[in-house]
Amino acid sequence: MVDKKLTGAGLRGQSAGQTKLCTVGKSGSGLTYCGYDVSDLADNATFEEVAYLLFNSELPNESQLADYLSSLKGLRDLPQALKEVLKLIPADTHPMDVMRTACSFLGNLEPEVEFTQQIQASNRLLAAFPAIMCFWYRYSHEGVEIDCQTDQNSTAGHFLKLLTSKSPSALHKKVMDVSLILYAEHEFNASTFTARVCASTLSDMYSCVAGAIGSLRGPLHGGANEAAMDMIQKFSSPEDAKKQMAEMLARKEKIMGFGHAIYRASDPRNVIIKKWSEQLSKEYGDTSLYDISVACEEYMWDSKKLFCNADFFHASAYHFMGIPTKLFTPIFVCSRVTGWAAHVMEQRQNNRIIRPSADYIGSEPRVVTPISER
Amino acid sequence: MVDKKLTGAGLRGQSAGQTKLCTVGKSGSGLTYCGYDVSDLADNATFEEVAYLLFNSELPNESQLADYLSSLKGLRDLPQALKEVLKLIPADTHPMDVMRTACSFLGNLEPEVEFTQQIQASNRLLAAFPAIMCFWYRYSHEGVEIDCQTDQNSTAGHFLKLLTSKSPSALHKKVMDVSLILYAEHEFNASTFTARVCASTLSDMYSCVAGAIGSLRGPLHGGANEAAMDMIQKFSSPEDAKKQMAEMLARKEKIMGFGHAIYRASDPRNVIIKKWSEQLSKEYGDTSLYDISVACEEYMWDSKKLFCNADFFHASAYHFMGIPTKLFTPIFVCSRVTGWAAHVMEQRQNNRIIRPSADYIGSEPRVVTPISER
Repeated sequence: MVDKKLTGAGLRGQSAGQTKLCTVGKSGSGLTYCGYDVSDLADNATFEEVAYLLFNSELPNESQLADYLSSLKGLRDLPQALKEVLKLIPADTHPMDVMRTACSFLGNLEPEVEFTQQIQASNRLLAAFPAIMCFWYRYSHEGVEIDCQTDQNSTAGHFLKLLTSKSPSALHKKVMDVSLILYAEHEFNASTFTARVCASTLSDMYSCVAGAIGSLRGPLHGGANEAAMDMIQKFSSPEDAKKQMAEMLARKEKIMGFGHAIYRASDPRNVIIKKWSEQLSKEYGDTSLYDISVACEEYMWDSKKLFCNADFFHASAYHFMGIPTKLFTPIFVCSRVTGWAAHVMEQRQNNRIIRPSADYIGSEPRVVTPISER
Repeated sequence: MVDKKLTGAGLRGQSAGQTKLCTVGKSGSGLTYCGYDVSDLADNATFEEVAYLLFNSELPNESQLADYLSSLKGLRDLPQALKEVLKLIPADTHPMDVMRTACSFLGNLEPEVEFTQQIQASNRLLAAFPAIMCFWYRYSHEGVEIDCQTDQNSTAGHFLKLLTSKSPSALHKKVMDVSLILYAEHEFNASTFTARVCASTLSDMYSCVAGAIGSLRGPLHGGANEAAMDMIQKFSSPEDAKKQMAEMLARKEKIMGFGHAIYRASDPRNVIIKKWSEQLSKEYGDTSLYDISVACEEYMWDSKKLFCNADFFHASAYHFMGIPTKLFTPIFVCSRVTGWAAHVMEQRQNNRIIRPSADYIGSEPRVVTPISER
């Protein structure tokens, strides 16, 4: 941690290219996909409509959507060899490592040989990720080898049914669908930028997405909703939450799920998922985790002027739906693969290899000493 | 290919951080690792000394090198589950996809849980990659399940023996060793930058390297030596080479293995590998592929003032050693994993998440139309 001269470090505020896909924080709080406000999409569209939008620049009409849903449904099952690989992955593996390996291995079996296959490859990953996650999870944790196909039309319903083998409620399907919309796209964040750097060498879609998963895995990027869950589960009441958070701040512990690198005033996704978390808490019959979360939100704002980001109320929302905490970040993959793939396609349209420079701060020129004299 | 406004595109010339590891093209042609000229290292050090240098900032003395060689030797064998995965990968898979999947899967079995394990994880990948490549290649192409351990002390000798089951000649071992040195490190190229972006989220070493492999796979990055091989094999003589190259240039075909994004006057690695290719051609007993390569070099310089980069004479050199063309880029991985891992460790030492901005050129704000009205 010496030489902390951070000129240009992190490329913060430096443009690394152009995009038609997304604006983030343009007026301090907004998030738009292809011009549509994310709250408008969460209220008036489905996740598959958003995926279609990101891949095709326009929302589908009814017949396009029906075709798209049917096409995705046909791409859900996993090849037997991939199931064999998933069965070889230990139960204590980081679930993001499972997603990375499965993405890479699917690219071995069904490579994207030409860029004309890019939408097919993207849809394949989008359709297969819920089964990848659930097949591995249930095999390694419950000893169950699940059928990777369901009768559910939506990605949200499909995932929830794979996870429990039960048909999910309409509310659960709706909230999961909204969640997938909220996480779908976020401009040049680190995982998307990883995918674009990879795409800039004209590599294949599976390489780009596997690279992006690896970046999303990092604790500074994905995983904040898992960390938020771990925290709020420790609080017994709203009062206890405030007391323990005060102690955490006094110990200078990092509290996950608050603030944002780009947003200054609020995260536009928070108000949406918070509303759904409240509804879920009522259906769940015990609102305490929601009440605790609200107390956290109030406390962080009052004491630190920090607002909840998209991740914070996702923790309680996912929990009310019965989702194991370790699957929170893999669900992020199931959603963000749409944004990643769209950025890969966009990078390919107007490509130049992404190859920055470095400032050299190392040793002056020197000469190799014979090993016997070292 | 519309809107070809490339402001900041590719981040060319923009600093994305600091490094102590490498200078490229500082005086128009130089390449140094930790201050040492690459030609000095190629003449007076071994690949493992270079790996040690990149991981520890200093060349090892005799006892450190002996310990290091012995430690690497102990890390060569592959876990049975990884062998099972390699056996499931089809023979027509892109070999770089095999490397990517195997790297990712090894990270499932032997995760880097804490950064204190970073050198161990890096050495594990360095030691295991030759067996990963050869186990898959020989199983899928020859039906042979090889022993992943050999009596060879060097990575170069180990790889060559795994590939053929025969003890390699001293010359072959020397040239492969030099080749691994030449490819070990090259500053913020696209694959290394991929690894650093991934590392900047504080993700694990396997994610970073898997991402880097995906980027190196792209035809604009790795693979130039394979493309050069495919070309020179079509030429029947030096005269034929010049004639066919003239025709290729007239058809505006891209000729791989010439010129460089950073070097202006020459690639310092070319003179080194060219010398070794010539020696190999004499041992091989048929110098025609070397003579054809020299004719190509002369022709491209005379007609286009383009010089050979590191890849061009690697094609003939690898060919003289009996290496299948499709393994050329995976060998690059076996070498460059040292540079990637060193950059990941460096990024972690003084980290800020790499998250650039984008210029928005998409749709103006718009409102979701009900699907029935689209």
